[in-house]
Amino acid sequence: MPSPAVLDGLDELAHFRDRFVIEDDTIYLDGNSLGRLPKETGPRIHQLVYEQWGATLVRGWEQWLDEGLRIGDALAPLIGANLGEVAICDQTSINLFKLASAGLAAGGRDSIVTDRANFPSDRYILESVASARGGHVIFADDDPTPESISELVDDTVGLVSLSHVAYRSGAMADGAAITEVVHEQGALMLWDLAHSAGAVPVALSQWRADLAVGCTYKYLNAGPGAPGFLYVRSDIQTELSQPIRGWFGHADQFGFAPDWRPADGIRRFLVGTPPMISMVGVDVGIALTTEAGIESIRGKSLALSSAFLDDTAHLGDHGITTITPTEPAHRGSHVTLVHERGFQIAANLRDRGVIPDFRAPDLIRFGFAPLYTTFQEVATAVEVLTDILETRSYLAFDEERSGVT
Amino acid sequence: MPSPAVLDGLDELAHFRDRFVIEDDTIYLDGNSLGRLPKETGPRIHQLVYEQWGATLVRGWEQWLDEGLRIGDALAPLIGANLGEVAICDQTSINLFKLASAGLAAGGRDSIVTDRANFPSDRYILESVASARGGHVIFADDDPTPESISELVDDTVGLVSLSHVAYRSGAMADGAAITEVVHEQGALMLWDLAHSAGAVPVALSQWRADLAVGCTYKYLNAGPGAPGFLYVRSDIQTELSQPIRGWFGHADQFGFAPDWRPADGIRRFLVGTPPMISMVGVDVGIALTTEAGIESIRGKSLALSSAFLDDTAHLGDHGITTITPTEPAHRGSHVTLVHERGFQIAANLRDRGVIPDFRAPDLIRFGFAPLYTTFQEVATAVEVLTDILETRSYLAFDEERSGVT
Repeated sequence: MPSPAVLDGLDELAHFRDRFVIEDDTIYLDGNSLGRLPKETGPRIHQLVYEQWGATLVRGWEQWLDEGLRIGDALAPLIGANLGEVAICDQTSINLFKLASAGLAAGGRDSIVTDRANFPSDRYILESVASARGGHVIFADDDPTPESISELVDDTVGLVSLSHVAYRSGAMADGAAITEVVHEQGALMLWDLAHSAGAVPVALSQWRADLAVGCTYKYLNAGPGAPGFLYVRSDIQTELSQPIRGWFGHADQFGFAPDWRPADGIRRFLVGTPPMISMVGVDVGIALTTEAGIESIRGKSLALSSAFLDDTAHLGDHGITTITPTEPAHRGSHVTLVHERGFQIAANLRDRGVIPDFRAPDLIRFGFAPLYTTFQEVATAVEVLTDILETRSYLAFDEERSGVT
Repeated sequence: MPSPAVLDGLDELAHFRDRFVIEDDTIYLDGNSLGRLPKETGPRIHQLVYEQWGATLVRGWEQWLDEGLRIGDALAPLIGANLGEVAICDQTSINLFKLASAGLAAGGRDSIVTDRANFPSDRYILESVASARGGHVIFADDDPTPESISELVDDTVGLVSLSHVAYRSGAMADGAAITEVVHEQGALMLWDLAHSAGAVPVALSQWRADLAVGCTYKYLNAGPGAPGFLYVRSDIQTELSQPIRGWFGHADQFGFAPDWRPADGIRRFLVGTPPMISMVGVDVGIALTTEAGIESIRGKSLALSSAFLDDTAHLGDHGITTITPTEPAHRGSHVTLVHERGFQIAANLRDRGVIPDFRAPDLIRFGFAPLYTTFQEVATAVEVLTDILETRSYLAFDEERSGVT
């Protein structure tokens, strides 16, 4: 294995690190939670605030009104969607509610399949959507396969909703095969791409996926709480009726007609006035990712996570295991280590300048963001982790639970 | 009547104009659609972007996580609510969907009363909420009164939802009296404060209002598409179950429990990760409004709109009428003139540096934002309008419809 310095020297994406504001020595391995700040974002926000809002006032809407659709089209190639199939709007949870409700209603069935390890917000929302129709949620085991899903989809199930990359384990599901078995059973497939967008190639059109949602503040580096996205395959858009009928989804937004009439295309899934200042970061983040190329990003991501898995393989003696698949094709862009003292170890790592993410009760997630994570950082993080485990210095840290998103 | 210059000289809020970025001669009378940019907002956004997101990365959430509730508490006194009853989150339309759904479900009745002139997004959303329960929307005439509402609320009606200040006419409803008659009929009262917050005093607690929503980018000057707010009276919070069960509303957000358990208090009405960069403007705008005082703002607002109504009263000869109540207690902070050539007149006004707002088919709205609108601006706007009407110069402008929010 070449040294980290050599790998960084060979890295064709290395120069993208200079596109981010990095003024610290922190080894930031939590870009799977909140990505770093691109240098272009601050000036672009300044421009929107002063040159658009401040100077053109309400006339700014002539430029802003369709930004959610324009930037959605920019995102489309990164997730394998076509133009007119993606919109930036609202938060991921709300988009999931809208699309899951619309999808379930369209099929006339009442239950939903998801997996027990899906993100809590997804599970809670899917349960409320199903129960509103008199159905319920059927839970697959963690890290679902085409077989485990196929077994659960009977003729009461109208929708299957899964995370493409699992937030806990980092396992990546087989998008094509799962979508296919779901369709064979007559249900719609909704993918949550929160941990996929900007990190791994996604091929929604090729999979014939029906619906998808995702967030932009992780690997797309759009900033804290930036609006999420939604995808609806073009040929089913007109069949779907979403439950939150806001004026941005109306066929004639400024006609102020007495009756609801949904817009053609993806626009019908919009609701209200988008938060334009937070939207700027979405535009910048997607452009930066597009410039780097999702295939190159995936290549570097796997190289980083492979190096991390190799270098931590010997830590089993210290009680470390992993729930992340070692097979590259089966994982996303983060690796999750398990240790019963995970909370303390994560606190100790942060104290020493390595930022992972802790998830109760015992998971430490290490996210690799190829646009700015270096091989040297990964190697140093492993060295620090090893030292912490060998010296048991983590015992000096409190055991109480954290509250980091 | 003292001259505009004298009135500006006497204006105790005059110095607040210096708190806004105003580098043009535009007479901006569309603050009821999008408020101006406070000087403090740009630097505060810069600080969040660089010092928090850029420098502290995911640890920024230690500061951000409860901002929606903290700023909600700051807004509470401006709308007559108590601490713990208001949250800043999502967009107004989504908040309306959440609260209308929760309110209707709690009462066990299925229909909703609103008025025909309510904002389209409100009407569409209320219709979808009612029809999801097998009910429907019953429409009152424009500018509802306690009597007109009372007549319509029978034992099928679980919720009445009205705009406190009507977006078209600028008429202000009698919050206390309407809430009282609604309660007498056993229904809940939901107020949309989009055109009230920051412009007129609202007394939600005193009215015993059950629910309210509103937006922050109009008179609160929070910026394009900044998050909205919601209010739920404290004694009914635990009875209400909102339909979009996101992790920000869970009793133990980071416990990632298998089951949904709503948080105590107003937090249960939150859904997902808030757009923090857009949230900054809400904080600044509310603080600025609080500093000025809502009673002072109301006083100046009425003085401005009274001057405008007086000065335009003679324009009837030119085909101008108004649908805004001339009685001060019955109007909000904008005045709506009607002219069959309204679109052309509004275009002509904009061309001459006066920015009103046009609403199809024939309404020209003039909004008065007391924090930055001067009496001289109002006088000049009337002069320009009078000249346009006398010379019929508007005939040179296109008749096509506009698309301004």
